[in-house]
Amino acid sequence: MVHLVERGPIADESLRPIGEGGLLLQGELIYRVGAFSDLRLEAETLQATIIELTEDFVALPGFIDVHTHICFAGSRAQDYALRNAGKTYLEIAAAGGGIWDSVQQTRRADQAELTRLTVQRATRHLRGGVTTIEVKSGYGLSVAEELKQLRAIKEADSQTAADLVATCLAAHTLPRDYAGTPEAYLAEMAAQLLPQLKQEQLTNRVDAFLEQGAFSAAQIAPYFAEARRLGFQLTVHADQFSAFGSRVAVEAGALSADHLEASSDDEIRLLAGSPTVAVALPGASLGLGCNFAPARRLLDAGASLAIASDWNPGSAPMGDLLTQAAILGTFEKLTAAEVLAGITCRAARALDLADRGRLVAGLLADFVLFPTADYAEILYQQGQLRPAQVWKNGRCVHPSPARA
Amino acid sequence: MVHLVERGPIADESLRPIGEGGLLLQGELIYRVGAFSDLRLEAETLQATIIELTEDFVALPGFIDVHTHICFAGSRAQDYALRNAGKTYLEIAAAGGGIWDSVQQTRRADQAELTRLTVQRATRHLRGGVTTIEVKSGYGLSVAEELKQLRAIKEADSQTAADLVATCLAAHTLPRDYAGTPEAYLAEMAAQLLPQLKQEQLTNRVDAFLEQGAFSAAQIAPYFAEARRLGFQLTVHADQFSAFGSRVAVEAGALSADHLEASSDDEIRLLAGSPTVAVALPGASLGLGCNFAPARRLLDAGASLAIASDWNPGSAPMGDLLTQAAILGTFEKLTAAEVLAGITCRAARALDLADRGRLVAGLLADFVLFPTADYAEILYQQGQLRPAQVWKNGRCVHPSPARA
Repeated sequence: MVHLVERGPIADESLRPIGEGGLLLQGELIYRVGAFSDLRLEAETLQATIIELTEDFVALPGFIDVHTHICFAGSRAQDYALRNAGKTYLEIAAAGGGIWDSVQQTRRADQAELTRLTVQRATRHLRGGVTTIEVKSGYGLSVAEELKQLRAIKEADSQTAADLVATCLAAHTLPRDYAGTPEAYLAEMAAQLLPQLKQEQLTNRVDAFLEQGAFSAAQIAPYFAEARRLGFQLTVHADQFSAFGSRVAVEAGALSADHLEASSDDEIRLLAGSPTVAVALPGASLGLGCNFAPARRLLDAGASLAIASDWNPGSAPMGDLLTQAAILGTFEKLTAAEVLAGITCRAARALDLADRGRLVAGLLADFVLFPTADYAEILYQQGQLRPAQVWKNGRCVHPSPARA
Repeated sequence: MVHLVERGPIADESLRPIGEGGLLLQGELIYRVGAFSDLRLEAETLQATIIELTEDFVALPGFIDVHTHICFAGSRAQDYALRNAGKTYLEIAAAGGGIWDSVQQTRRADQAELTRLTVQRATRHLRGGVTTIEVKSGYGLSVAEELKQLRAIKEADSQTAADLVATCLAAHTLPRDYAGTPEAYLAEMAAQLLPQLKQEQLTNRVDAFLEQGAFSAAQIAPYFAEARRLGFQLTVHADQFSAFGSRVAVEAGALSADHLEASSDDEIRLLAGSPTVAVALPGASLGLGCNFAPARRLLDAGASLAIASDWNPGSAPMGDLLTQAAILGTFEKLTAAEVLAGITCRAARALDLADRGRLVAGLLADFVLFPTADYAEILYQQGQLRPAQVWKNGRCVHPSPARA
């Protein structure tokens, strides 16, 4: 399916599935897409790989998860149980839970252990069809510990067939040792961490959690200014509980504003009128049991909407992008085209990756084969229809996983 | 974990996990439960099977899904896509969708095909830890076609290791050939279908969908009266969109009232004061994108709450009980104990099965081993932690499935 529009609503009728379709691959790229009978001669001439889709298979672009926190150690299963038992945030923190628990457990893990855990989770995602995975730091919260996390993510990227896109989230929450001095913490990260990230080429992306209890617009302004000066791309945790982050995201020219559960019409208009991609995180709604981002209204206003898993040990432990995207579709009344665009081509825009997200010639041969004749089955089964094959960079990586 | 209370709230603190626990099995029953070191000698003496749970495993009772419609043919993926694209019920029906589509496809399938499809779905459920599965008819809607469905369910029960509990849902919706004459349809079913079910021992359960557009309280009264006279147990589709079914359920002495998304305080009080089990069906909420049953308020009022999948081709296509129960827990703020009771011991009550649903001596040895040291992980991972082993009637049926 091709030619998905970049923003706003998409009717399913505009999708054009190719019957008896085929993909001609050369190296890691798609060389041509069409009816497979038309591709066979060329495949022989070029000695290229040809993927022939009989009636029993549908090919989709490899899924792109633009927001995860999968580089962490420890479980927060007790937090989850306490929250569902009606305990408050403060009671959970008093019981030793909350984000600070993940920080402590992640700090205690060495880099090799974090690499192992990240590869393990990336591999599970890959089997579900996710071929590109954004991974944030943010459980280190010191120069040394953030570096450890981002080095672990870089190492993990070399050990999994999925592409991992690292993001520095040193501005996740204020570490306890800087209590009361958020400006000093962010100034230190800007001065000492960000240049080092550039030097080691660990990431070109910087994220911040804009929320009461995390960072304010005024606190983040100088940090973002320095990040931009150093050439980082920005993304923002915005409007999860209080609606001020999306304005910061748009004004800072962030690639994406993620969460948006608390966005009102003002923020929706703002995002729709900007190049910033709106990212819904249904996994956080399912993990916390709260409302979904206003995806339908964002699309109707003309925004570009991506859908990501937010896979993290606290608020979004499920880590199943397809199930979550399908569920968001039923609650927000999204067409299949809108949901699929949100985890493929529109997600690619949120990561500024022009080389993937659609099945067209010249892009990376990242795709998923589902064992069904009808693409509508994929969302209808709400995650229960599993990929038959996953291909990354022109190679089948599941069910016969190969190392990159 | 044992000694779960039969109704009302349950604090997680009241659960008593047995460390280094073991199960001693004799034949298809549990002979003893305790620390496995205490059971070893007895196991030798009795030559009984002993299950030793090291730190890496948690055993739970086999899950019981008290409400499914898995005996159907055909897919309604197009309905799902149209509904999410904003089409109305009438527009979907005009496009050839809706329940009548499932009736026509199920009527076209022969009994062997329905058996095959039912076994296939039961096997998927079994791998997820569901060892007892209620299965409704209701896509036949004539004497002959309902018999075909219920015979298919009986045959499927003999072909899967899971126990299938059949229910006659001839009162699912009014078939088109009886348009305008619901009384005549129900009278025919009462006179010709119900006695035949008894004679062939196809089921001892009768269900009805009480809803605007389905059947009214007045219409169902003589049908239920006849069913009771013949010795059937009753269950009711109640309060999904309009709140009158739970009153019918309680007054008719039904074992369970299922759905309850539209139940208000009046219905909650009524159910809490009755022996009727309240059954939440989160799969229907996730499939339709609508609110969940008021599970928290039902428990707080003192009701007994079971949780079921409602697996069906129209409104609940996911068919993953554990994922759905976990999600209901986050939205309704249910303790882990309440969620687990809802798919084990309280579910057993909803089916009037005194021989299962808890891990205690004398009950059926139906249990699931999860690969974790902490039972809280099972709900925390929201369906992503899969069973390592499933045992039914004292035999391991997954991963080495054996036929019953």
